[in-house]
This record gives sequence, structure tokens and C-alpha cells, in this order.
Amino acid sequence: MKVSVFRKEHFNAAHRLHNPSWNDEKNNTVFGKCNNPSFHGHNYEVIVRLTGEVDPDTGYVYDMKILSDLIKDHVLNRFDHKNLNLDVPEFKDLNPTAENIVIVIYNTLRKEIADKFDLKVTLFETERNFVEYPVG
Amino acid sequence: MKVSVFRKEHFNAAHRLHNPSWNDEKNNTVFGKCNNPSFHGHNYEVIVRLTGEVDPDTGYVYDMKILSDLIKDHVLNRFDHKNLNLDVPEFKDLNPTAENIVIVIYNTLRKEIADKFDLKVTLFETERNFVEYPVG
Amino acid sequence: MKVSVFRKEHFNAAHRLHNPSWNDEKNNTVFGKCNNPSFHGHNYEVIVRLTGEVDPDTGYVYDMKILSDLIKDHVLNRFDHKNLNLDVPEFKDLNPTAENIVIVIYNTLRKEIADKFDLKVTLFETERNFVEYPVG
Amino acid sequence: MKVSVFRKEHFNAAHRLHNPSWNDEKNNTVFGKCNNPSFHGHNYEVIVRLTGEVDPDTGYVYDMKILSDLIKDHVLNRFDHKNLNLDVPEFKDLNPTAENIVIVIYNTLRKEIADKFDLKVTLFETERNFVEYPVG
Amino acid sequence: MKVSVFRKEHFNAAHRLHNPSWNDEKNNTVFGKCNNPSFHGHNYEVIVRLTGEVDPDTGYVYDMKILSDLIKDHVLNRFDHKNLNLDVPEFKDLNPTAENIVIVIYNTLRKEIADKFDLKVTLFETERNFVEYPVG
Amino acid sequence: MKVSVFRKEHFNAAHRLHNPSWNDEKNNTVFGKCNNPSFHGHNYEVIVRLTGEVDPDTGYVYDMKILSDLIKDHVLNRFDHKNLNLDVPEFKDLNPTAENIVIVIYNTLRKEIADKFDLKVTLFETERNFVEYPVG
Repeated sequence: MKVSVFRKEHFNAAHRLHNPSWNDEKNNTVFGKCNNPSFHGHNYEVIVRLTGEVDPDTGYVYDMKILSDLIKDHVLNRFDHKNLNLDVPEFKDLNPTAENIVIVIYNTLRKEIADKFDLKVTLFETERNFVEYPVG
Repeated sequence: MKVSVFRKEHFNAAHRLHNPSWNDEKNNTVFGKCNNPSFHGHNYEVIVRLTGEVDPDTGYVYDMKILSDLIKDHVLNRFDHKNLNLDVPEFKDLNPTAENIVIVIYNTLRKEIADKFDLKVTLFETERNFVEYPVG
Repeated sequence: MKVSVFRKEHFNAAHRLHNPSWNDEKNNTVFGKCNNPSFHGHNYEVIVRLTGEVDPDTGYVYDMKILSDLIKDHVLNRFDHKNLNLDVPEFKDLNPTAENIVIVIYNTLRKEIADKFDLKVTLFETERNFVEYPVG
Repeated sequence: MKVSVFRKEHFNAAHRLHNPSWNDEKNNTVFGKCNNPSFHGHNYEVIVRLTGEVDPDTGYVYDMKILSDLIKDHVLNRFDHKNLNLDVPEFKDLNPTAENIVIVIYNTLRKEIADKFDLKVTLFETERNFVEYPVG
Repeated sequence: MKVSVFRKEHFNAAHRLHNPSWNDEKNNTVFGKCNNPSFHGHNYEVIVRLTGEVDPDTGYVYDMKILSDLIKDHVLNRFDHKNLNLDVPEFKDLNPTAENIVIVIYNTLRKEIADKFDLKVTLFETERNFVEYPVG
Repeated sequence: MKVSVFRKEHFNAAHRLHNPSWNDEKNNTVFGKCNNPSFHGHNYEVIVRLTGEVDPDTGYVYDMKILSDLIKDHVLNRFDHKNLNLDVPEFKDLNPTAENIVIVIYNTLRKEIADKFDLKVTLFETERNFVEYPVG
């Protein structure tokens, strides 16, 4: 009896989009106002989905309190009220687009969650722009 | 030409999480404040998804008014403004976690909806905790 | 330079509406399904508004972290995952309607917040039913 | 490294549901108040999902600004502040149910987006009624 | 002990903005795409606020079920799934802007609600455009 | 016949809270993680309320398209995808707290809107923290 369970959390962060191998003109053409060298920011919403068997003793797939704490310890504590480009090592050489952020969050959480659970992450950069990884 | 159609409804209910085969200490350790013997409650939101062929005469997969009435008759009338543990027979011996509630709702609606339609149910216990069944 | 600042918090609680000086028939006529003796529940959202001068040193009317902690300590810790009728002393002899809950929350917070700040509380029982105190 | 990216847009339109091969009585029985000959309307929300490889140079699956412009040029400019039955050629002989609208939007966008991207469209007619195409 | 109570309802309607004493060019200049002669439409959300004394017997300012039924009988039944210009007599000679709609709703409900209650109506035409009457 | 009309817009910006007349320790004590020298950011939502007479010719208090353009020209174009501390002159010597931002937005728009309209601005820094100016 498999069920998917979801936990939504949020963090507030600054970032800019920039490819250091391009000149300023090309960066500006491709990334527009997202390339602003002094950064801008977002209220990111992250939804973590775990899929697994319902434990007959608890009626839980996963304790939401433990999942929330996992997300706080491994994602929010490192991303919240931070500058993703400057403060988060994963983005030292990786452009912090929503696509790359969601992959980093997935890879971070994948190590913390037992293999028997399928994992998917949805990241809202704004109410109108969001991403999901892995696909399917 | 298959399309998925979704209908969202809500109900307000009390519940507590408890495993009667455990002692109070273990129940409290596992379920924390959700184990409060005098109950707490939620505004549950339920989204029912049907997938099927578009009827060329109506342009409908399923009449949303009929789907809404089905959910009201078979789920809301039995769950809304109720205590899930005390008032709903399905939870007499089943812990009313979001996971178990969503399975009960699915099983209830599955009997009412023709087999040619795929059925999926999403249940929000809070804006930040939700579940989906079946998976995939 | 006065500004109003708002902080939104939430709690999940069970309650029932009942007037002990009435018989069951009258309670049922007036309160309908809200009178269910085994309780039902809600995800309550509470918005606290403080109005005061902006402190020129901080740019704050009130530190939102301190306001959030105040609400947690004095309201959420006493109401969240509780049965308002059974677990919260203020409702021992007071019907826990949204109107009475918002007055109790106001009176609780009013003692904790300096008189120089105006205080108003909005309480959502559901997305479609909410109340505000004081008025104006 | 495939990621799904989503862009949400909206349009406001009038429509009525009607099958011209049926008499008025049957139309009224099947479509009820949605059959009103003088039309009614909705704030439609449309979510477009593209799935594809993350471009290592940009960190994008697809530039959200370009996707937003595509939706504006090919969907919103033709549907927004329009009467779907009278002003949009696709619905001259097709009942503008949510199911048929989402298929028309999909077919319209499918021509504009390279085949290497999977495409899915979700359409909200109201907060409580929505549809998705293709399924799965 | 005065409290404000709020009830939120919704209706879906078609309309167009038009001043019959102006020529088409002026109507088009002033109202733009809202002047489309074949109409467009919205999901309107209406919030009704009553302010009054809390009844010590019920703990209610006003029974929300009764308020909801009042709004349904006097507003929704006449506006929902209608064309405001063609189907609602109040707009025969009155442009159905959000401003005029909210005044009509207020005037309609004012007759149904005892004078001892203050009344205010908020009307959302879209999530981003809304109006309130009376002011203050 | 006065009505209040509201227009909601949004912008994404980076900022940090800092008082240059304090040492780092005091800044850190007061502003906590909001003091991060490399900045963080938010999706700000701004709601502008104008109150005035309904024009009998248009049925408008104010053309929402013109109000939206005013907000875009005078606020969004200067704040969106910017670092409030570094890119916006008003915050060169003013701490960009929500309180100070809402006052700056009000003062900016007040010059652009005729005196016969009352003006109020609400600013959401997050869904849970927001401010309003002027008060009352």
C-alpha cells in the first residue's frame, strides 16, 4: 500500500544568474535583469515528496516532523537568508537557476532518506515559475 | 483523447493519532501532540482526479456537478464536522493519519466511479502536509 | 511615522459549539453540525496587527521574530493540537465560536504588548469564515 | 539531467456550454446554468509544463521569459477578454468545456515548442475545477 | 463587545464595460479589451463583513450559515453563471465595473440585514483587482 | 459615492538589514540572519489602495490599467530584480525594513496620484510578514 507524502517548506534567498565564461554583454542578453551584479532575491517554496509503504503500526509513510526537520537541517539552514551565489558552496561554480537549485536540493536530501523511498522535489521561485526534479 | 479532470472539496474534522496496542508513553513518543486524547482538528482539502476519454457529445470527461455530488454524498456527509476516530466506522480500528484517510477516501469513491476512469485522491491535512494515493 | 505590522501564525484545534443552559434540541437547532458532541476541528489562521511608530534605529515598529515568539508562547502553545472546549481554561464556560476565540486571543496578547501599540487580531476558522477584533 | 519547468499565466473569458445538435431542453438538462445563452465567464489559470535537459551553459531547461511570451502570443492574445464561443475560431464547432480548452491550448503550444521537450498543460476554470492534458 | 465577521462567496459571470452615450471609438479608448462586444468574464469573489455585538447566548455576531444563505439567495442566485449586462436588471443602465457591482451588492444586502449591523462588501474581480464599499 | 479600489503587483529584490552606526555584534543581535552581509531576498507583493468618487461616465474610481502602469513605472522598474540597499537611492541611508519600504512606496506614489484620492499601501515581505501605511 504505497502512498506519496508531501512536506512544504520555504526559504528566502538572494541570487543572480551569471555564466562566468561569457562576457557581460552575453550574460545580459541571456539573463536580462536576473544578471544584476548586485543580486535580487526570492521567497522560495520547496515541496518534498516521498513515496513508500504505509507502516501498519504508525499509519505513516514517513513522520512529517522528521521530514520537516531533515529539510530544515540540510536545506533551510544552509539556504535561508543566504546569498546562493556567495554563501552556498554548491553554487560556487554552478549557476543558481531554479533548475540547478532543485537538483542540488534533491541530491542533498537523497543522501538523508532511505533508498526504499522515492523522492521528488518541487521548487517555486515565484508563484508563476516553478520546477520539478526528477521528472515523471 | 484522454484528459484528467480534478474536483476540490473540503471538510472539517477532529482526530487524534493513536495505536491502541502501544502504551501511552510510546504513543506520546511517536505521535507527540497529535496523540492528545481530547483530539485536535483540521480543515481538510480533498482533490479527486478522474482520467478518461472526453465524451464527444458533451465535451466532458465527467460532469463536475455529478462528481461534486458524489464526493459530498460519500465522503463529506460522513466526514465533515465529525470526529474521525469516534464517528467514522472505517477508523474504528485504523489510525486516521492522512495516509490512511486518503486510502479510505479512494476506496470509498472507487466503488462509485466506473472502472473505465482512473482515480487518484490528494488530501491536504494542512497547507504544508499532504498525501496522494495511489502513487505514480 | 506610524505603520501597521502584521504577523500570521496558525494552529490546529478541535472544538464544538454548545450552550449548556439549552437542551440538546435547541443546541442542535442553533448550532447544527457544529454541535456534534464528539467535536470537529479546524486549521485556524491568526493574523496579529500592531500599529505604532517606526523606531528610527531599527526601522522596525516591532521585531517580527519577537512578535512571532509572543504569539507562539501565549497562544499557539496553549491552543495548537488542543481541544478548545476541554483543554483551554478560557473556554470552560465560554462557547468557542470564532468570535469568542478572537476576543480571547486579543485579551491574551494585549497583556504582553506595550500600551503604545494598537492591537488587532483577525482569525480565520476556514478560508471562507473569519472574524476581527476589535472593530474599526 | 531532465527537469520539468512550469509557467503559470491567466486569462479572463466568457463562454457557454452548448451542443447544437441537441434541443434546448436536453442542453439545459446536461449543462444546467452553464448553458445560459447570454454566457457567463471565468478567470482561467493555465500552467504550462515543459520537460527537458538542463542546458549546461544557461542552467535553464527553457527561458521562462520566452515561454511566457509564447503563451501570451499564441494563447492569451487570442483568448483573454474574449468570448470563447464567438471570438475564438477553434470553438466555432467545439464546445468550450475545460477539457476541450486544455486540448486546444496544448495543440496550439505543441507547434511552437521543439519536439525534444515534453509538454503538459493544466487549466483551472475555477479554484475547485481543473483539468490536465495529456494524462500520465 | 463588537466583533466583525466575514463570509466569502463566489460567482462566475460574463460582462463588458460600455457607455452607451459614447461612440465606439471612445468606448474602445477608455475601456480597451474590456469593451469587447461579445463579452468576457470573471470568477468573482465577494467578502461580506458584518460588525455587531456578540450575542452572549450563541457567541455569534451573526450565524454564518444564515449569512451564507442570504448572499446565495440575494446575490449568487441572480449573478452566478449570468451575463451581468444582459441578465441582471440593475446593470441595464449601469456599467458593470467592479465599483458599480460592489455598490449593487451592498445595496441588495443592506435591505436584508438589520440596521444594528454595520455592513461592508469587498469584491475581487481578479486576484489583482478588487474594490471595497463603503470606504473607511 | 466613494469606493476603494485595489491593485496588487509584485517585485523580487535582495536586501539586508543593517544600521551603520552600530558595530557588527549589535547588528547581528538585533537583525539576526537578516543582517547577512551578502544579502538575502524576497518576492514582495504590494497592494495599492485608492479611495475616491466613482466617475459616473466610466463607473471607475481610477482606471486599473493606469494604476498598474503607474506602479510599474515608479516602483517596479526601480525595485524589481534589484538590491534595495545598493541599487535604490532611497535606501542609501535608510534601512530597507518592510516598514521603511512601504513608506518609500507610499511617498513615491503619492506624488503621482491626484490629492482627491486617499492612498494606502500594503506590502507583503512574506506570506506571514506584512505592513501597511498609512495606518487607520
